[in-house]
Amino acid sequence: MSMLTNMDLNAIKSTSGGGDIMGFDYRSSFRADLPAAAKPWQGFPAYNFVGGHMDPDHVPVADLLAALTATLQKEGQTLATYNLATGPLGYLPLREFLLQALKTRAGMNITADEVLITSGSLQSLDLVNQLMLTPGDTVITEAATYGGALTRLSACGARYVGVDLDGDGMRMDALEEALKRLAGDGVTPKYIYTIPTAQNPTGTVLPQARRERMLSLADDYGVMIFEDDCYADLLWQGSRPTAIYGLDDGRRVIYCGSFSKSIAPALRLGYVVADWSALSHLLALKTDAGTSALEQMALGAYCGPHFDRHVETAVKNLKEKHDLMAELVSAEFGTAAEFQPAKGGIFLWIKLPDQVDTTKLAHVAGAAGISLNPGAEWTVDGAAHRSWMRLCFANASRQQITYGVRKLAAICHQEFGVPQHSGNVTRSV
Amino acid sequence: MSMLTNMDLNAIKSTSGGGDIMGFDYRSSFRADLPAAAKPWQGFPAYNFVGGHMDPDHVPVADLLAALTATLQKEGQTLATYNLATGPLGYLPLREFLLQALKTRAGMNITADEVLITSGSLQSLDLVNQLMLTPGDTVITEAATYGGALTRLSACGARYVGVDLDGDGMRMDALEEALKRLAGDGVTPKYIYTIPTAQNPTGTVLPQARRERMLSLADDYGVMIFEDDCYADLLWQGSRPTAIYGLDDGRRVIYCGSFSKSIAPALRLGYVVADWSALSHLLALKTDAGTSALEQMALGAYCGPHFDRHVETAVKNLKEKHDLMAELVSAEFGTAAEFQPAKGGIFLWIKLPDQVDTTKLAHVAGAAGISLNPGAEWTVDGAAHRSWMRLCFANASRQQITYGVRKLAAICHQEFGVPQHSGNVTRSV
Repeated sequence: MSMLTNMDLNAIKSTSGGGDIMGFDYRSSFRADLPAAAKPWQGFPAYNFVGGHMDPDHVPVADLLAALTATLQKEGQTLATYNLATGPLGYLPLREFLLQALKTRAGMNITADEVLITSGSLQSLDLVNQLMLTPGDTVITEAATYGGALTRLSACGARYVGVDLDGDGMRMDALEEALKRLAGDGVTPKYIYTIPTAQNPTGTVLPQARRERMLSLADDYGVMIFEDDCYADLLWQGSRPTAIYGLDDGRRVIYCGSFSKSIAPALRLGYVVADWSALSHLLALKTDAGTSALEQMALGAYCGPHFDRHVETAVKNLKEKHDLMAELVSAEFGTAAEFQPAKGGIFLWIKLPDQVDTTKLAHVAGAAGISLNPGAEWTVDGAAHRSWMRLCFANASRQQITYGVRKLAAICHQEFGVPQHSGNVTRSV
Repeated sequence: MSMLTNMDLNAIKSTSGGGDIMGFDYRSSFRADLPAAAKPWQGFPAYNFVGGHMDPDHVPVADLLAALTATLQKEGQTLATYNLATGPLGYLPLREFLLQALKTRAGMNITADEVLITSGSLQSLDLVNQLMLTPGDTVITEAATYGGALTRLSACGARYVGVDLDGDGMRMDALEEALKRLAGDGVTPKYIYTIPTAQNPTGTVLPQARRERMLSLADDYGVMIFEDDCYADLLWQGSRPTAIYGLDDGRRVIYCGSFSKSIAPALRLGYVVADWSALSHLLALKTDAGTSALEQMALGAYCGPHFDRHVETAVKNLKEKHDLMAELVSAEFGTAAEFQPAKGGIFLWIKLPDQVDTTKLAHVAGAAGISLNPGAEWTVDGAAHRSWMRLCFANASRQQITYGVRKLAAICHQEFGVPQHSGNVTRSV
């Protein structure tokens, strides 16, 4: 394979002289504070329990293709202009679908100029951070939250303060305490970042009363709310509450969502919803000359007739996989694994015994083809969560879940002496 | 139309109290140094002579769709994973096409791990800037160059130094002088940004001897080269020279290209080529969870069998439109317009008499449905280029070019008293 061969060559080159193979060391032009360089990609692990990868058997390929075909045949020539023919907020049929869907599904009453289609929700995060953050700023997050959001906050030079969760998501008494403490220190956080529905990684859902309380606290302390609803379509327990954005009577909430989980993550499509007074700034900061046209056209035509039914089937499948993984973790880890069933989403958030360092576990398991997210990367206080891990059940097949969890328990026992009992087998310590 | 209605509503809201409609002014959470907010989109102008919009009649819609259909039918399930199944550098069939194309067309011998597919060449610019720039850094550019690159350099807090061009692109004596002067001031520029082939906006092509000289100067002064070859496929005069990257025996060049001009700008696909020692950093900085899958799949299957022939036809069409616009500008502006024919690309770069302020002309013409790029936005020394303008001939139809240029000459006369002669009409001053 040419890639590996060349990697080897580079390795040889670096050993034999590094950057200084001409008159100057080209690396002196690089920034001094770069993040670590990427490593060559090694393919997917055999048991892929990380990230937001979804189920290959539930991508609606044929319907997406039919939708795109109809659209391209009708208006394919509009590919000749940046942003097609409906402006930089994004493809209008897709925005119009979202108006309808967010009204029905999330109780949001918005107009087409309050929606900006983005190239995936990570771009939404970047834009909101660019809108609000300068180095030294403070942001409030859930104590366990999306690792990619924390990485981005760090890259912006922002400090983040975690607020504890319980079985109903972020605790409002803890939020109030955090806001009060920060106010006492003279700090007004720039925003509260929350994943209220099918929270990542806990799978909890914030009840309506807490949403209203969060809005009132935001008001009292003069703090914006950034509501990340990326998993909200994937709920199987209880009904989806009105979005915080939908409860807001002012302009204190910026909302984002994504099609990565409901349709497919390789389609890079997300969206931000905000009042025009904020969205006009977010749009000015979006300097990428537009989000991919084919993906917007495909979903613009697909979603109207197909979205609801597709999501219904996909969620049923996810619920089955959730239950299977929960069952396997219970069987293989026994009392060594503590977790709450998720109410939606694609993750189990699991506490292992204190002697288990999941960062080390991830390393050893990774070498054996099992990938997982260690708790330290998904929490504000990493040290306090060194025995937690996040397992994604969406991508792996039922067989991979079964064998993967079994294998993970064996590796965990081998490294840390727990679990002592797997299924009806007692392991020697 | 809901969009305008809501804009009006917002206008009313702002007049009647601004941000302070709850307990706090939400705008206090925004950064103080934001760029200007976006204005509501008003649709395309009747005569669209700005930007990189292309010809709607030359988008290969049917072939793109057939290519995508075949690919999705074969491997549509891979949409379930971020980056499909071939890793974060991008869809492998598309990278493999680029290896072949860049070898044949630009004399570059590269491997698949030296190519990173990006979400358009603007992302390539962002990544390279993130790799190298910190505020206060200096970059060298052509004296007239891509306005979007200059905007980005300013946003990074970088200073840019322009080097004069002649009919063969950047002048190497002027480059040497600039490097020497900067070195005398103790400044090592981070990179030389150059568009050597079908330069934007001048349409010049840097000859091979100058490319070699640039490499040797880069070596002497310890400066990287960032080669932007976005228009290089659109050459109609002379043969395409070997890319500077292809002449480099070290690692001093980072190269970028795009499919926006050769296929369609609404497809957000570009690429960076660099040695893995730089590309591994660029890849780490690309935190968007991948570039759009459908567009990579479509081009990955389309380009091998179709790219060369499509580009040949597209270039022939562009050459005809170039000639038509050149003829019209000569006829309508007479001696008031000075310009060199372009050797490729999609622009004419035109000098009007000194009394014409093209920023003002753009404003007045814009109100009459004609858009153009004023010289001040496309040059390092804007004041010295206030009478220049860039006209794009790719998007407009032949009829639009004809009427648009005629109308522009009339507006210019009305505002600035020139041209005095249009066709066989003498205008009163």
